[in-house]
Order: sequence, then C-alpha cells, then structure tokens
Amino acid sequence: MHRTHTCGELRSTHIGEEVTLSGWVQRRRDFGAMTFIDLRDRYGITQLSFNEDQDKSLNSEARSLGREFVIKVIGYVIERSNKNLNIPTGEIEIQVTRFEVLNAALTPPFTIEEDTDGGEEIRLKYRYLDLRRTPIQDKLILRSKLNKAVRDYLNEADFIDVETPVLIKSTPEGARDFVVPSRMNEGQYYALPQSPQTFKQLLMVSGFDKYYQIVKCFRDEDFRADRQPEFTQIDCEMSFVERDDILSTFEGMIRSVFKQVKNIELGEIPRLTYEDAIRRFGSDKPDMRFGMELIDMDTVTKGNGFGVFDNADSVVAINVSGGNTYTRKQLDELTDWVKRPQIGAMGLIYCRINEDGSFKSSVDKFFSQEQLAQWSLVCESKPNDLILLLSGQKDKVRKQMNELRLFVGEKEGLRPKTKFKACWIIDFPLVEKDDESNRWHAMHHPFTSPIPSHRELMHTDPGNVKANAYDMAINGMEVGGGSIRIHDKALQKQMFDLLGFTEKEAQEQFGFLMNAFEYGAPPHGGIAFGLDRLTAILAGTDSIRDVIAFPKNNMGRDVMIDAPASLNKDQQKELGL
Amino acid sequence: MHRTHTCGELRSTHIGEEVTLSGWVQRRRDFGAMTFIDLRDRYGITQLSFNEDQDKSLNSEARSLGREFVIKVIGYVIERSNKNLNIPTGEIEIQVTRFEVLNAALTPPFTIEEDTDGGEEIRLKYRYLDLRRTPIQDKLILRSKLNKAVRDYLNEADFIDVETPVLIKSTPEGARDFVVPSRMNEGQYYALPQSPQTFKQLLMVSGFDKYYQIVKCFRDEDFRADRQPEFTQIDCEMSFVERDDILSTFEGMIRSVFKQVKNIELGEIPRLTYEDAIRRFGSDKPDMRFGMELIDMDTVTKGNGFGVFDNADSVVAINVSGGNTYTRKQLDELTDWVKRPQIGAMGLIYCRINEDGSFKSSVDKFFSQEQLAQWSLVCESKPNDLILLLSGQKDKVRKQMNELRLFVGEKEGLRPKTKFKACWIIDFPLVEKDDESNRWHAMHHPFTSPIPSHRELMHTDPGNVKANAYDMAINGMEVGGGSIRIHDKALQKQMFDLLGFTEKEAQEQFGFLMNAFEYGAPPHGGIAFGLDRLTAILAGTDSIRDVIAFPKNNMGRDVMIDAPASLNKDQQKELGL
Repeated sequence: MHRTHTCGELRSTHIGEEVTLSGWVQRRRDFGAMTFIDLRDRYGITQLSFNEDQDKSLNSEARSLGREFVIKVIGYVIERSNKNLNIPTGEIEIQVTRFEVLNAALTPPFTIEEDTDGGEEIRLKYRYLDLRRTPIQDKLILRSKLNKAVRDYLNEADFIDVETPVLIKSTPEGARDFVVPSRMNEGQYYALPQSPQTFKQLLMVSGFDKYYQIVKCFRDEDFRADRQPEFTQIDCEMSFVERDDILSTFEGMIRSVFKQVKNIELGEIPRLTYEDAIRRFGSDKPDMRFGMELIDMDTVTKGNGFGVFDNADSVVAINVSGGNTYTRKQLDELTDWVKRPQIGAMGLIYCRINEDGSFKSSVDKFFSQEQLAQWSLVCESKPNDLILLLSGQKDKVRKQMNELRLFVGEKEGLRPKTKFKACWIIDFPLVEKDDESNRWHAMHHPFTSPIPSHRELMHTDPGNVKANAYDMAINGMEVGGGSIRIHDKALQKQMFDLLGFTEKEAQEQFGFLMNAFEYGAPPHGGIAFGLDRLTAILAGTDSIRDVIAFPKNNMGRDVMIDAPASLNKDQQKELGL
Repeated sequence: MHRTHTCGELRSTHIGEEVTLSGWVQRRRDFGAMTFIDLRDRYGITQLSFNEDQDKSLNSEARSLGREFVIKVIGYVIERSNKNLNIPTGEIEIQVTRFEVLNAALTPPFTIEEDTDGGEEIRLKYRYLDLRRTPIQDKLILRSKLNKAVRDYLNEADFIDVETPVLIKSTPEGARDFVVPSRMNEGQYYALPQSPQTFKQLLMVSGFDKYYQIVKCFRDEDFRADRQPEFTQIDCEMSFVERDDILSTFEGMIRSVFKQVKNIELGEIPRLTYEDAIRRFGSDKPDMRFGMELIDMDTVTKGNGFGVFDNADSVVAINVSGGNTYTRKQLDELTDWVKRPQIGAMGLIYCRINEDGSFKSSVDKFFSQEQLAQWSLVCESKPNDLILLLSGQKDKVRKQMNELRLFVGEKEGLRPKTKFKACWIIDFPLVEKDDESNRWHAMHHPFTSPIPSHRELMHTDPGNVKANAYDMAINGMEVGGGSIRIHDKALQKQMFDLLGFTEKEAQEQFGFLMNAFEYGAPPHGGIAFGLDRLTAILAGTDSIRDVIAFPKNNMGRDVMIDAPASLNKDQQKELGL
C-alpha cells in the first residue's frame, strides 16, 4: 500500500495516528539536528520531520533527497510547533519512522513553484513538469469542474449526449480542413470536423429533440497567437424551439456553471442587437464590465473648418471619467498606441474638462470654449473627465474606438479578471459581401435561418436580411454562438444559391442534409460554446494554452512529443503518399 | 411556441386543458367520421382525434397528413374511450381544434417502426431515419445514461477529466495509425491516437493522481465485422496504487453503471488467472453465465488404440446437462459446425448417458461401457447428459472447445441477454513469441510492468514472466483491460530491448516518456474500457454499430455522407499530396 492518506488530508484530529504518505519532495530544509521536507501531491502539502537525535541514519538519508524525488513515508502525525495557518495541513507534521524512495529525480530544468523561472518553450517541452505547478494544475481541475457543471445542467434538462463521427467528409467552404488519407480507399480522404454542425442537425431530423456533446473540433488555420489546431466545443441543438427558448436555456447553463464552479451569481444578461452593439461599443462582443460607451460626435464637431473632422465619414468619442489626470506624456503614448498599424488610426484628439469647468483640447485653434462645452454636454462629461476622439470611415473608426475603449478600460482598472459580465448579441446580418470576390458570405454559416419576417427580403435585398442568430460574449470575448437553423429544403437551396454554390456543389457537399429535410425535419436551432475560451475566462487567464493539458505551440507543433513528424517509408507507401 | 408539452407527458390529470404538441405523424387511421393520428416525439406517442361532426374541413385536412409529416397541433386533452394501457399516455387523447404542417415528408424508404422492412445498407444511407426508430433511439439514450453513470462515479471518486490531444505522433509499433498531413510542416504528419496511453502516464508523472477521459480513439485496421475505425474508450489512470486498488475501484464503477443504468446488481466478480481461464474455459474472456467447463480427458481416453485420441496432444470434453435429448441429426450438425474452417476441428466425439445409466458413444468400438463410465465419472455426468469431446493440439483444442461451449450454451438458452456476469482475468503472460519473426511481442503493450516478483525472470525466461495486467470480461466479451505500468526508465528500457527496439527507435518514439520517468514518476496503473462494447452488452445487442449514432460500414465508409471522398485539386496541392 502506497498511502493511507493524501498530502492534503491530515489535520490535528489525526495526531497520534500512524500514517503512510506518498508524494514529491517539494522542498527540503536542513536545520542542525532536524530535517524538514514538504511532501506534495495533488491534494496538498504535508510537512515531514526527521530528527537526528531520534534516528541519526534516517536523518542523514533524508538529506540525500532532492527536489521532485518520489518517496513513500511512514510515520506519526504530531502537532507542529511552528504552525502554518496558510495551508490546511499546517497544524501537523509527520515524524517519519521510515521511508522509501519510489523514484529518484534529476534536477528539473525549471523550478516547480507557483512562479517558475522557465521560459515558455522549455515549459512546453517539459509540459509534464510544468503541469506539476499548482497554478497550471488548478486551471485543469477547474476545466474538469466546468465540464461537469455543463453536463450536470444539460443532463438535468433532458439533453442526450451523442457522439458524432470524427472521420467525416471535407467541405471546402469555410476554414481549411485537416484530412486523413484512407488506406482502404486509395486516393480518398476523410476530413476532421470543424464542428459537428450537420450531424447535430441530422439528430434533430431523427427526433433526438435535445442533443449535446463536448467534442474536439479541428481547423487547419495559419496559426495566430492563442489559436489551437484542435479545440473543444460544448455543442448543443434543440428541436421545436424558437430563439428565446434557446437563449433562456443556455443563459441558465452559463449561470449554473458560474455558480457551481466559482460560486458567482452572473447577474442579468442583456440582449443587444448587432447594430446596437456596434453603435454603442464598436464591437459585436462588447466588454460590458464598464461603460465608457462610444458617442457619436458628428453634430458637434463638423463644419468648423477642422479638416480632420470635416472630411471624416464619422467622428466618435469616449468619455474617460477622471481622465484629466492623464499627463501630456500619457496622452502622447495613447496617440502613438492608436497610430500603430494594428489599430490604424490617423491620430487622437482629446479634450480635458478642467476642475473649474473650463476646457483644454488638442484642437483649441478650431473649437471655442462654447463649442467644447457642447462636446462635454453630448458626452455627459463631468469636471476632471477626459474626452478622446477618433475620426475616419464609419466602420473603421468604431473598431478603432472599441480597441481604445478596451485599452483605456484596462488602464483604468475597469476590467478586473474577477468580475464577469455576459451579454447576448442578436440580429446579426445574415450575409456580408466579400469585396474582393463580390460574393455573399454567410456571417455565421450556411445553415443559419433569416429572422422569419425577413425571408422575402432574401430575394430583393440580401445585405439587409437579419439572421436568426445569436452570440454570447463575456468580458469582451465571444464564448458561444448559434442560430435557429433552416429546416426546409427550398430555403436551404435558396441560401446555397445566394452564397454562389452551384446546384451540383450543394448536392455533393450537403446533399445528405437537404435530402434529410425532405423526410420531415422539425424546426430546430442550437448553439456551440468554446470550452477552451470559457475555461480561460473563468480561470482568469488570457491564454487558452493555459487550460489545455498538452497544447501545441504557435506553429502547431507539439514540442514535447515532437509532432508532426515524418512517416516511415512503409507507412507512406501503404497510404499511397 | 411550438409546444406546451411533449408527446409522452399528458395523463388523465391533464383532461380539460388546452395544449400544444409538436411531433411526427407515426400512423393515421380513418374511421368513418373520425380520424386518429398517433403523434410521436422522443418522449412518447399521443393520440390525436379529429371529428367530422365537429369540424368537417379540419377532419378532411387531417386526412392529407402522411407518415412522418411534422405537425403542430392545438387542442383539448380528453378522456380516451378506448384506453391503451400499454403506453403511459394511453388514457387520454387530444381533440384537435387546429393544426399546422411544420414540414411535409416524402414517404420514407423503409418503415419507421420497432421492426423495419429496410435492409442494413439502406438504413445506413438514411441513418437519420433509422435513428427515429425507438429500438435504435433507446440504445443511444442508454449510451448517454451509461456515459453519465461512469462520470458520476469517477467524479465522485475525485478523478479529473482531462482531454489529451488528438493530433499526435505516429508510432509504427502496434496497429496502424491514421495520419494527418501537416500543411504548415510539409512532408510531416500528425497521427490520430490509438489510445491516450502515453499522455495519461505523463499526467501521472505530473501528479494528477487520478485521471479519466471518455475519448475517441482510432485504428486503421482491415475491417472485420463489428470493428469501427473510430471507437470510444473510458480511459483511466491512477497513481500510488497497486493492482487490487485498481480492480476494486473499477469493479465499483462497473457495478454502479449496471445499477444506475439497468437497476441490476452485478453480483460477485471473480478473479481468474489467465492460466485458469484457459484451462477451465479455453478463453481469456470466459462467459461465466454458465458452467459447462472444459474437462481434461487425457487420463481416461488415451492408450486405448483409438488413434484420434492417442495421437492427440490433448483430449478435452464438456458435459451438456440433459443433452441426451439431442437427435442424431443435431449431433451431425454440431459435428459439421466444429469442422467449419472458422473452428477447424477434425471431428466431434460424443457419449450419451442414457436414463438407465448405460452409455452410447460414437466410439463404442474402442471404448467399453466401463471405460465410458470412467468418462462420465471424470465429467460428473448425470443420466440424460451428453459428453462432447474434441482432440488435437493443446492450445487449439481449447480454443475450439471454447467456441463449442459458447455455441451449445447459446442453444441451451444459458446465455440470456438479460443476465450479466463479469470476471477479471489476471496474471497474463507479459510477452509472447511471434513464430514468424521469432520476436517477443508485448501481450498488452510495452508499458505494462511484470509482476514484481518476476522482474528478474525477464532476463532469464521472458516467456514465463507474468504481467501485472488485468482484463475485465462480461458475458464472454472483453470490456476493459489495463495494467500497473512501468515507472522507471531502466525497466522501460529493458522492456523495449526485449521487444527488439533499438535504442534509437525507443528514443525517437518514446523518448519523451522515458525522459519523464527521470524526473520523479510515481508508481501508477490504469485501465481502459471499450464504451461501444460495454454499451452494446447493456443494450443487449451483438453489434456495436447499433450503439453508434453514425457508424461506418464494413469497408470503413460512411455511406450517408459518402466519406471518404476525393479532395479537390487546390486542397491536394496545398497539402503537397
């Protein structure tokens, strides 16, 4: 038997018991005749003590134990003279009577502590050691809990967990597929799913009524920071529902997850139309932890001879409460920041509202105190506030202002990782025109239905058709999205037409789905949440890599196992590659 | 709103309420002035009634509804005059006041009833329609429940659900991998995991202590009946455990699953050594629902001048209780059955024990009544029993007798699908010699440890080393297997040596694992259960295809979506294929 208790279990009530513990040597401290070792396992840390006076050779053996050695110890639980009230086992220690080295350890290439000295690349290579660190382990334990909370809620609500296939067919539309050559069917390939979309719709056609799955999906993208070629979705679909049925079901799920995992009441989840979200925040995934909404300044800035404003499509402002404390240097830095190519603004205009109610702007040459007073009225500014303005093409300037709002919000401490605010975005455009190809693209995917009253508009004015689609954002990040689906063949065909599919292409790629719609498909809709992102938000980290046990690096490589790798000749030949 | 209730929900307590239901037209019956429709959804069937006297046009509209139309109806719950006590909703019906066709349906290519008239190929092509049939849907609902029962048990026992990667590295050892070409790293490939074996071991090195995952795995095998290229494992691993810790943990899990899913107490789970299992049943996955164990007949059959026995390595019998009722024709059929190439026996010898205690055998020329009495003594036969004997090479004859035992057991009704009996098989050989290559092969896999007392034997007599491995079988089918793993580098290296890996090969393929063992790997072990097989057993079906939502056919094709398929030129080019 390797242990009677874990390293997180013993309390003062156990004093006097003989126990067996196993774990890792976290730290050893040698004090004169005494040796202390912190023994660690997943459950906690327990202090071991060795005393030269009691057992000289045992004490000297203990001094040969290095960091990360795996040992098994037998001893008595005794009261600790120097109690550590920061840890649950801090009232006791184990007076060791014998021990055994279960496995020795080389010195790890970085320290296994809360904060480590290892760089990212070496920590990925030795991921199994980085995973020993409490902050990383805690995040994966949180992921496991989140997973359970999701399942508990959906099981309770009568959803059926159904596995859909991983070896499916490639559909060139959308992102790139990973493909798998078929040895049994030479020259043919399976593809890995980007989502189980069509399968979950077929399950609705089959009458499964409520489906869910927590499932790996795959996308062969050019890697960017914080994208992984494989990622996990909480994938759901329901029949005989309308939009609000879905929103309330999954609002409930997210609430329940926050409650179960973090004991947080998520509060009201407002619903914003896409239009409103863009207007108020310049983003379809607004961070609603704070205000500082975008203000349209056209009426009070134009026609004053200031070309930058006069010639701009749109002038937009935010009001930074108390922002008059920003120094000139800080304002210059902000200006540099918005002019970086990632943001792309031409410049930044500001107006200080002084304590005495006077104004000081960077465009005092063009605007009188009265005119600046108008600005402050529109912005509902108070003394000591700061107005920041950007101008340019309408869509672009809103995007830029969104970035600036988030940046300033961050600086102002308005985006604490411990605060959570969710919102729904609804009424997205159904399609958007790609300027290059002059073709319509589905904003969500080709299975999304228009809102019922816009169905006719699809013929006459597709660009103004609203989709019966919805996204959920938390703290400025999209965590989920879905739609009421098309469930009749004629409308699905019309949608494929609009997207420029030939009949042959539509039939080849999605014939099975359109055929299925002819055999009695119910109205249905669904949603998918990104489990990695949702976990990262709950864990308070910016990187999804922190919540994935064995992530790939920015080049899509697993540097620990060194994959991808070349195949041996026999394998290649057998696969006809 | 599409419904106020489901089709399985209404009872006599609802009489008088106005309700809205949605579902599929299962059947329509026209009786004079009345029309009855069975409306179906996942939850049940509710009868709708239309009455010409009340609404002539509604009644005639109802008569246009075909099988599998999706409709929404509004009406009143009324008491049914002709109650159907076989279904929970049989006391009521809905007097429809209006309805709407949500989607029409073509006539399905086969009937959507308990028993269908469709052949397998067409049902796979229209899998979404076959999935509407209650027997199939029930099996997938059972799978979902089983999944939940497993998770409930493991979560309760403090296991952490961790996802391991799907895009990993190919290891040519073992079964064939499916591979995925990497666009970003031309000429290199990921492989899909045959199991998360090495990753779960790394999680133990990381101190996760107890891991589980319900996970898709992949094997590119030549397809046989009832093999799928993708399958699902309940994959588990624990640290600081010995064999019996694992057996008792997962005995508990299986018990809990049977209890939660089928309300069945599984009873005692005996542990047999591999040797005993082969001796008593001729199989390492014995069906223990019945006795009829194999009996060694060498001592009472040899040296009597009957060449078939005398020249055989081994003579084995089973005693069929009450088998004297078998006619000569049935015995001839049994003989033909064992002589088929799949079984490969040379012939079948029998001996009847007559009611009066006399014997009648197919070898009366060679054996006297006294000698046959010896047989019956060894076989503990009673009057009216039948002894069946096979002879030949020892290993082969036991395998053949295992098949015969199962076949006769089936005929005798000793293997009812409603009875379940599990057993553990332990102490497997660690390695077996492949006669062709004259190389040792791991019987489980190269990470399995020998039983501690046999470690020295690995140098001197590898063929006699027992592995610290265990399988669970239920009703004659292997449902799970695992082992205590090797956790030190020297032993792992020795194992790779024994299996004929060069140091370079071992390092290339499993270097990351052996390196990990140098940084403090705890003793650990685990197990994996086949979820598809386990579900099939609980669902009482012989085919795992019945418990997979979208299975592939015997050629590894998904005939519904028509995958695998050829890629378009651009995709091929981009991947350098």
